[in-house]
Amino acid sequence: MSPPSLNRRCVLARRPKGEIEDADFVIEDAPLESLEPGEFLVQVSLLALDPAMRGWMNDIRSYIPPVAIGEVMRAFGVGTVVSSREPRVVEGSVVSGSFGVQRYATASIKGVSVISPLRAPREKYLSVLGLTGLSAYFGLLDVGRPQPGETVVVSAAAGGVGSVVGQIARLQGCRVVGIAGGEQKCRYLKERLRFDDVVDYRAEKVRSGLRRACPEGVDVFFDNVGGDTLDAALASLTRGARVVICGAVSQYNAVGPPQGPANYLSLLVNRASMAGFIVFDYEDRFEEALAHLSSWMIAGDVVSDEEVMRGIGSFPDALRRLFNGDKTGKLLLDVTA
Amino acid sequence: MSPPSLNRRCVLARRPKGEIEDADFVIEDAPLESLEPGEFLVQVSLLALDPAMRGWMNDIRSYIPPVAIGEVMRAFGVGTVVSSREPRVVEGSVVSGSFGVQRYATASIKGVSVISPLRAPREKYLSVLGLTGLSAYFGLLDVGRPQPGETVVVSAAAGGVGSVVGQIARLQGCRVVGIAGGEQKCRYLKERLRFDDVVDYRAEKVRSGLRRACPEGVDVFFDNVGGDTLDAALASLTRGARVVICGAVSQYNAVGPPQGPANYLSLLVNRASMAGFIVFDYEDRFEEALAHLSSWMIAGDVVSDEEVMRGIGSFPDALRRLFNGDKTGKLLLDVTA
Repeated sequence: MSPPSLNRRCVLARRPKGEIEDADFVIEDAPLESLEPGEFLVQVSLLALDPAMRGWMNDIRSYIPPVAIGEVMRAFGVGTVVSSREPRVVEGSVVSGSFGVQRYATASIKGVSVISPLRAPREKYLSVLGLTGLSAYFGLLDVGRPQPGETVVVSAAAGGVGSVVGQIARLQGCRVVGIAGGEQKCRYLKERLRFDDVVDYRAEKVRSGLRRACPEGVDVFFDNVGGDTLDAALASLTRGARVVICGAVSQYNAVGPPQGPANYLSLLVNRASMAGFIVFDYEDRFEEALAHLSSWMIAGDVVSDEEVMRGIGSFPDALRRLFNGDKTGKLLLDVTA
Repeated sequence: MSPPSLNRRCVLARRPKGEIEDADFVIEDAPLESLEPGEFLVQVSLLALDPAMRGWMNDIRSYIPPVAIGEVMRAFGVGTVVSSREPRVVEGSVVSGSFGVQRYATASIKGVSVISPLRAPREKYLSVLGLTGLSAYFGLLDVGRPQPGETVVVSAAAGGVGSVVGQIARLQGCRVVGIAGGEQKCRYLKERLRFDDVVDYRAEKVRSGLRRACPEGVDVFFDNVGGDTLDAALASLTRGARVVICGAVSQYNAVGPPQGPANYLSLLVNRASMAGFIVFDYEDRFEEALAHLSSWMIAGDVVSDEEVMRGIGSFPDALRRLFNGDKTGKLLLDVTA
């Protein structure tokens, strides 16, 4: 196969104010430069859509630098190596890494993994066996430290991270309650993911729903949402409870400062704690976690569903869907189409 | 000495809305009932004024029940036993406990300590050697876990708890920065309490002040204030920082919900944690802590200053002074006057 000469890519054109608009990005064709020693060219197939992407678009100091204006939008994905000047990565290898929203990525070994398409379909490497599953694993087990018999509540429970968190918590012997919007998602949580109970924030107030579903209070709250949802959970904590801050999808599009949790003094009254984490800090334990996640997946104890949207031009639409609540499971983008 | 027959006491008349008013309390004389077996009568001398008192006046579930309407206002104090039907507590003993805002308290052994007026003046048992010092000790050392060389910041630094926190942190080999209002308090912190630096919130913005005084960021933030002060500190955390929630004096008089920390996602970005505590949970380690506090006090390594107001009728005024920022050190009330 002769190497491609043009790369279609999605570049950050300006910093969004509030909600994402199509014009925040430019889809363009750019020439591909030839590989330097140690580099290889990846034909990207699937990309993971993640709410954290919204944060990378803001010009603020964070755990990684923001995407620069004019730079390819950052995204994790899987793809196939089509040419290589890195002896350890042969052509035809399937790899995962931070390839960006583009059809071809020039990559080096740093931060890239060779994955086995025999072990699991490639979409699983962007959900249960990717940063999504790893975030659920370390956030819940290391930061939340659930004990058997405890009640674990997770927000955005039908989303990529939330659905794995709930299933790992069940495997730890916890009672698991999910917060999600709409009858369909709630049925999904109970029937397919085997959550013990659900709070449908479209049908009832989260605060009273949690009181109903967690009569003995919330021991671990794994939060992907922030805002009123976090406040409602803070109002239900048990003594010594742990709140895990994984994300705040309700706040990422806010134009002003985010809404702080007015009920934070519940931490004092209940001798509770609230802690954040960044999955990349656990890199030296990724193999351990992937071994567990993989065996749970093979045993059918952790299931996951991915929805695949098509076409690099759909990227802004796909990103918006993370924030309007109309998807279940992990959202992926096929950029080959 | 013949036993007194009348007790002057300060009773909660109604629940305050926002700031405390005189009419929230009634000062009244009530007959003293005779002692039951196991009880003793304490002539109360000094009471500690504490911001937590404001919380006890609200009708909400907390770590202890609220003071009921018509009940003597709760307060910790020291006094002298004037008659006793408890063989282990002889007349003339000096005791500390939750005696309430009144001249005479009928007490039993539970929650009461016999203290030694030879070891320290009685006011110290309501500051360094009381719940104030114990809160500083356990909150800083057990929840904040400062390491030598780290930067510890404390808000309301010239107050009862804050001034002890800063001095213990200095003894741990930390760089200590206090936040306080006004030149006089800031001079007090630097000159008498030997803080390394101060942020005067009346003279500069706390956020830029912390950036100046903590160029490498804040490793431990011990918060007594909440509101904008907490947000400013959250904006300066180092990776892995610990935020200790001891109180939120800026929020206790709020009529609506308290102001939540808008910068709480700094916990995520910095893999930091925020935790509350209640000093009473550490009761079985009070002796250990008091041994340390006492030896530090005797060595002159931890100093404290108490301001004594006089007269049971001054109680509402004294309580208000905790919230308007015009006192340094621990505020006490002499109810014998």
